Amino acid sequence: MADAHLRRLLEWALEEDIGPGDVTTLPLVPPHRKGRARIIAKEPMILAGLDVVREVFLLLDAHLTILASSMEGESVDAGTVVFEAEGNLRALLMGERTALNFLQRLCGIATRAAGYVKAVKGKKARIVDTRKTTPGWRSLEKHAVRVGGAQNHRMGLYDGVLIKDNHIQVCGGVREAVTRMKACACHLHKIEVEAADLQQVREAVEAGADVIMLDNMDMDQIKEAVEYIQGRALVEVSGRVKKEALGRLAECGVDLISIGALTHSARSVDLSMDIRPID
Amino acid sequence: MADAHLRRLLEWALEEDIGPGDVTTLPLVPPHRKGRARIIAKEPMILAGLDVVREVFLLLDAHLTILASSMEGESVDAGTVVFEAEGNLRALLMGERTALNFLQRLCGIATRAAGYVKAVKGKKARIVDTRKTTPGWRSLEKHAVRVGGAQNHRMGLYDGVLIKDNHIQVCGGVREAVTRMKACACHLHKIEVEAADLQQVREAVEAGADVIMLDNMDMDQIKEAVEYIQGRALVEVSGRVKKEALGRLAECGVDLISIGALTHSARSVDLSMDIRPID
Amino acid sequence: MADAHLRRLLEWALEEDIGPGDVTTLPLVPPHRKGRARIIAKEPMILAGLDVVREVFLLLDAHLTILASSMEGESVDAGTVVFEAEGNLRALLMGERTALNFLQRLCGIATRAAGYVKAVKGKKARIVDTRKTTPGWRSLEKHAVRVGGAQNHRMGLYDGVLIKDNHIQVCGGVREAVTRMKACACHLHKIEVEAADLQQVREAVEAGADVIMLDNMDMDQIKEAVEYIQGRALVEVSGRVKKEALGRLAECGVDLISIGALTHSARSVDLSMDIRPID
Amino acid sequence: MADAHLRRLLEWALEEDIGPGDVTTLPLVPPHRKGRARIIAKEPMILAGLDVVREVFLLLDAHLTILASSMEGESVDAGTVVFEAEGNLRALLMGERTALNFLQRLCGIATRAAGYVKAVKGKKARIVDTRKTTPGWRSLEKHAVRVGGAQNHRMGLYDGVLIKDNHIQVCGGVREAVTRMKACACHLHKIEVEAADLQQVREAVEAGADVIMLDNMDMDQIKEAVEYIQGRALVEVSGRVKKEALGRLAECGVDLISIGALTHSARSVDLSMDIRPID
Amino acid sequence: MADAHLRRLLEWALEEDIGPGDVTTLPLVPPHRKGRARIIAKEPMILAGLDVVREVFLLLDAHLTILASSMEGESVDAGTVVFEAEGNLRALLMGERTALNFLQRLCGIATRAAGYVKAVKGKKARIVDTRKTTPGWRSLEKHAVRVGGAQNHRMGLYDGVLIKDNHIQVCGGVREAVTRMKACACHLHKIEVEAADLQQVREAVEAGADVIMLDNMDMDQIKEAVEYIQGRALVEVSGRVKKEALGRLAECGVDLISIGALTHSARSVDLSMDIRPID
Amino acid sequence: MADAHLRRLLEWALEEDIGPGDVTTLPLVPPHRKGRARIIAKEPMILAGLDVVREVFLLLDAHLTILASSMEGESVDAGTVVFEAEGNLRALLMGERTALNFLQRLCGIATRAAGYVKAVKGKKARIVDTRKTTPGWRSLEKHAVRVGGAQNHRMGLYDGVLIKDNHIQVCGGVREAVTRMKACACHLHKIEVEAADLQQVREAVEAGADVIMLDNMDMDQIKEAVEYIQGRALVEVSGRVKKEALGRLAECGVDLISIGALTHSARSVDLSMDIRPID
Repeated sequence: MADAHLRRLLEWALEEDIGPGDVTTLPLVPPHRKGRARIIAKEPMILAGLDVVREVFLLLDAHLTILASSMEGESVDAGTVVFEAEGNLRALLMGERTALNFLQRLCGIATRAAGYVKAVKGKKARIVDTRKTTPGWRSLEKHAVRVGGAQNHRMGLYDGVLIKDNHIQVCGGVREAVTRMKACACHLHKIEVEAADLQQVREAVEAGADVIMLDNMDMDQIKEAVEYIQGRALVEVSGRVKKEALGRLAECGVDLISIGALTHSARSVDLSMDIRPID
Repeated sequence: MADAHLRRLLEWALEEDIGPGDVTTLPLVPPHRKGRARIIAKEPMILAGLDVVREVFLLLDAHLTILASSMEGESVDAGTVVFEAEGNLRALLMGERTALNFLQRLCGIATRAAGYVKAVKGKKARIVDTRKTTPGWRSLEKHAVRVGGAQNHRMGLYDGVLIKDNHIQVCGGVREAVTRMKACACHLHKIEVEAADLQQVREAVEAGADVIMLDNMDMDQIKEAVEYIQGRALVEVSGRVKKEALGRLAECGVDLISIGALTHSARSVDLSMDIRPID
Repeated sequence: MADAHLRRLLEWALEEDIGPGDVTTLPLVPPHRKGRARIIAKEPMILAGLDVVREVFLLLDAHLTILASSMEGESVDAGTVVFEAEGNLRALLMGERTALNFLQRLCGIATRAAGYVKAVKGKKARIVDTRKTTPGWRSLEKHAVRVGGAQNHRMGLYDGVLIKDNHIQVCGGVREAVTRMKACACHLHKIEVEAADLQQVREAVEAGADVIMLDNMDMDQIKEAVEYIQGRALVEVSGRVKKEALGRLAECGVDLISIGALTHSARSVDLSMDIRPID
Repeated sequence: MADAHLRRLLEWALEEDIGPGDVTTLPLVPPHRKGRARIIAKEPMILAGLDVVREVFLLLDAHLTILASSMEGESVDAGTVVFEAEGNLRALLMGERTALNFLQRLCGIATRAAGYVKAVKGKKARIVDTRKTTPGWRSLEKHAVRVGGAQNHRMGLYDGVLIKDNHIQVCGGVREAVTRMKACACHLHKIEVEAADLQQVREAVEAGADVIMLDNMDMDQIKEAVEYIQGRALVEVSGRVKKEALGRLAECGVDLISIGALTHSARSVDLSMDIRPID
Repeated sequence: MADAHLRRLLEWALEEDIGPGDVTTLPLVPPHRKGRARIIAKEPMILAGLDVVREVFLLLDAHLTILASSMEGESVDAGTVVFEAEGNLRALLMGERTALNFLQRLCGIATRAAGYVKAVKGKKARIVDTRKTTPGWRSLEKHAVRVGGAQNHRMGLYDGVLIKDNHIQVCGGVREAVTRMKACACHLHKIEVEAADLQQVREAVEAGADVIMLDNMDMDQIKEAVEYIQGRALVEVSGRVKKEALGRLAECGVDLISIGALTHSARSVDLSMDIRPID
Repeated sequence: MADAHLRRLLEWALEEDIGPGDVTTLPLVPPHRKGRARIIAKEPMILAGLDVVREVFLLLDAHLTILASSMEGESVDAGTVVFEAEGNLRALLMGERTALNFLQRLCGIATRAAGYVKAVKGKKARIVDTRKTTPGWRSLEKHAVRVGGAQNHRMGLYDGVLIKDNHIQVCGGVREAVTRMKACACHLHKIEVEAADLQQVREAVEAGADVIMLDNMDMDQIKEAVEYIQGRALVEVSGRVKKEALGRLAECGVDLISIGALTHSARSVDLSMDIRPID
């Protein structure tokens, strides 16, 4: 997690929720009153984002005492207390919603990722994410994906080369695009290229692409492509893959299956926070 | 939409995706090449966030020409071209993913909101959102909720009073909490208080609460509460309401139904962008 | 006080005064020399802003020791030492002016607010502030108003509804404006409307306004309006109220008297700082 | 005026007042409705801050048309229309308060400065301001002082040397402090030193100080000091000078009279804004 | 060039130089006076950073007219006018130094890079830069390197894998480090590893490293390593390479020569700006 | 050093290098592993910037223990360990390059400054820097200049008056420019003016300039100017002075020699960092 970015997002999130002040809590809760907060999983899940929760509360109360915390990546059952802290009661009340808003989404992503990974267990195919993340949250969501056992595709447009149909069209073909890129890419970057059909797969292999993304091909085309490529490049399949179809897809021999739904459609999992004043 | 916040979020989103530069597009696409982009709905939906899309592209190319755009709030069918623009091809390629990441989520929220609103059509109950929004996105998501025809609950802790169980516990009871708040709240704010049972409902009414939130009550309790209150306060029900149960809930005579799932579990709807170089 | 905003303002204030460095203190005062600072009230006053003073010095010397501090809201006589601290001498010298610039103004506001509140003692009328605050200082100045015993009107345009003459003109009348607002306002917000004459007061009451602001009416009109309203709405009077006239105004039975001069014309009260090097 | 700072302050001021949105104006005023705003002086004054007003409105409506504007520094009578603009009605309504909050204070400072300058007309003494400015506003307030015809003392601790009693105490005397500073000050900076009595004045002159600030001396002491110095250094008098005493002070032959009240106690002058929708 | 970062750096640079205002130019040059500025190369050079110059002036005068500009990357002789613009005279005077401070350094880097590239002309070895850049300037300096015809190594720690001696030590050997990294690196990243001797080179090849950096080896060792590797990995040599030795180094058959001096020790080349008022 | 600016630059520098995360270190080095880092001078030098190094590492690991550090300004030989710290190994690895990038440049400037100062030892001439600094680094570089024993010219355009040829041209002559400036400059600022020939020197002296900069004059002209001025103003010579010529220049009797190369062409000196994991 990139700390400066994370802190910026958390400060923003708190400012967005608290603004110039909590008009209910400030007049009703004395400034020095203490409280204890417990976060409880209400369904089975993989935990991700516990650091974020801790940071949210520490931003509001630098003297917070963390009494207990599950491990990042832990698989817990409904009813588990995953985080417990003691501190300023106003801080706990003012941070509750923000902390849960982060945690529920990140655990949702980790849990979903773990499910996909399980579906291809034993196959060589790796599950990877995409750039279909929530704007502002990319580092966090990619972290949750890793926590759930899947792997990250590139972080953004800046750290990996992926030649798409538009680039191909501008360059005049797969061969031309790959060749041109090989001449100028950073020597630490592999070159991935999208292929819409077998003809493009052939061009990509011949031009020396390192990774080939099979775009919207059916199972038969995918098998044919994998056979043609024969390990000369890594093979990625992308697109709207149903979880049930993952196993069969993996059996085609692909190296990577990228799934946008890992992040863009993750469900918020159910976690609740219980806060009690203490004397 | 708060413009300064929005711009900050968009700049952040672009920085997060593009960072120090798109390592594929910069070497393959000439700097002055032009292109045309069209965004197409792939399923029926209510549109929200078209301004965001426009801003994303304008941030990357101040000279972009917008050729066509659907209306915010419009209900469109699969296949509709909802946005079309012409401009710098690099800018279009570099903004594509960010624009879609925003648009798909915001349309998802508006579409879901419209569905809920339809389910209570003809009843007095209004559908309202909650603070269970994506941190960093509150203004945007609350905007999408309004676009879908539902209404906003408070924006944050700062612009509306809502006395929750923890506040009640600190004050020593519903009556004490409401009374104390009436003495110090801004004269422009109504006072809403959570009630866990009918006894608390009675105390709230007697203490002069303006709005009473019935927390986790079943249909019978809700009906009883509404009958007891008899318009002396607005009645809000909250909690995990299934869409199918909304109609029956509305028939209980409640004034407001608040639904966290409007924002925390909205599905990304399917939209695609088609970019072509032009000469 | 909203901490992130406050810190931003304090950092700005220090940057504005110190810039790239104090060209007198840096060469003349050794970096590790210690000093003691005492702030002394030079006239009777209500104290507000002591936290700000502490923060200013802590920003310059994280190891500052605070030896004594009066209480926020305390009423002190001339000669009282209201704050005493020991720390890095350079930090004390470089923070002196900024600390006093904040403190003198905030104490001035609290003192003035207390004077107004005293003038209506025993009446139901509350003294409230306005949005006529120093840009950048709203939270601080509204805090000082509360410290002085008066109450806050809305914080800004975002947390309370106040329909003014221009809105009425656009909507076509008081009735139309209030009615339209009732249909769309957040259910936690009351609706306040300006009325320029009794006809508008009547329309406002009939349309169901929660608060009516009597704009520039004389005492007789105010009395007539209060009698007509008979508690069906809260009554606010605004405008340039002389302190001497407050008692009579309160006797008219109004609920709120809003006074811009509380913040826009508060005099800096006299406080001095005494700094001595220690060995 | 330092543009980056100014813009930052204006954006802050607007954010502080408007936050996530004007809950009255947005629902009542259609987004494309136009309006005209006129700012009118309600008392005689010297104008300062018209640029700020323009910037405030341009930040809210980049297409604003300015129809008329008085000149910065102009002396106007009650009733003068000092600014007139046409643009988006929402923008005008949302910027009104912020624009006036700036303008009233800045005109107040310029008007007060002009009064002081007039009081010493024909004497060699210049009226200068101090660092007793509103934190966050220093550039603006120093600008208003210049507009009113007075001059600026140093902008902050960074652009001018002023050796105060604390520095003298640390160095072991006026002579030692001035001598040490002469050895290391930037060659573009003169050296000013505070003198509490004639003995210190003598030391300062002998050590080669360029400017001597007579601190809290009475008229006789000031005359004696001026006579002793005989032009070997500039003479500044500081402290709480009543406006009526300025003339006599100037006759003592001092070069500079610095007055904190120019900025820390300037009264907001009376200006109003009239906004009308246009068709 | 990453625009948001660039703008932030330029604004910072201007703030750093101009601060609250140019105390010489503001009183001496009337606000609306126009001027013309010409930048002239005083020695032969490769141009880099002309966009930066333009942006600096546009930030100070949005209405600047650019009359002429050489091409980025152009090789010019002493005496060439490389940039000419007309605009607000104050803006030109206030931006002059900042513009030249950027331009002189960036042209210096491009010119130096071009010299190195020339020295290996005809060989397969590419000249690449390092992370030894001026903090805050990385994008700019890497841009200048490309303009000069050399290539970029990774932008930072985030976009390329380079296993250094410390990583090897932690992992327990080259083999272990490379193997572990292959299991978890993004599939778009190649794996580069430092090798201190031939034993480590062998391990690296066997473990499947994509790039091997020969660290501080002499010519004989380098030749031996290249022969051993035989194209199974790219070979980078790094370290303090004298320009005269580049040719011989390239003849060893290495693929990449990385040179920190490209950026950390580039000389400012000589460019001057000539500004004249126009009527 | 201005702390807020410095911190901003350091955070930027780290963000620029680390971005969303170090893709080599994060997977290979366990999060809680400790390490020890030593920075070693590889050539004789004057040290400057040790605080910056400490801050860089503390930003990455707030619990870093500093075991040893040379003194700012110390003159050290090759082989000296100038800084030693123990802390989180990831933090040390991720901060290494940034710390060195700062330190090497700042020590380079201090070392160069010390060399120039030595060259005029025993003469009254002071060596001063210029505004030819690295944008973003001005405070740091001017600090390094002082550490090396030279003095600072003005920090920027805002804290010292320097009338250049363009200003003279606008005003219509040296006499007019100086006279006008004397009427409006802050009383704490001396007035420096550029003179291109003896005629301008004479005008400057007669108009009462405090400092005269002899622009591009040869030794004979300089001597003649110094003789003419006879102490009535300080004399600065500027321009491309070779280090060897400094002694003779100083013998001409000038007061200040300003040298842009102190900052714009300082060589990075050789320092290395040695990091070892500890158990």
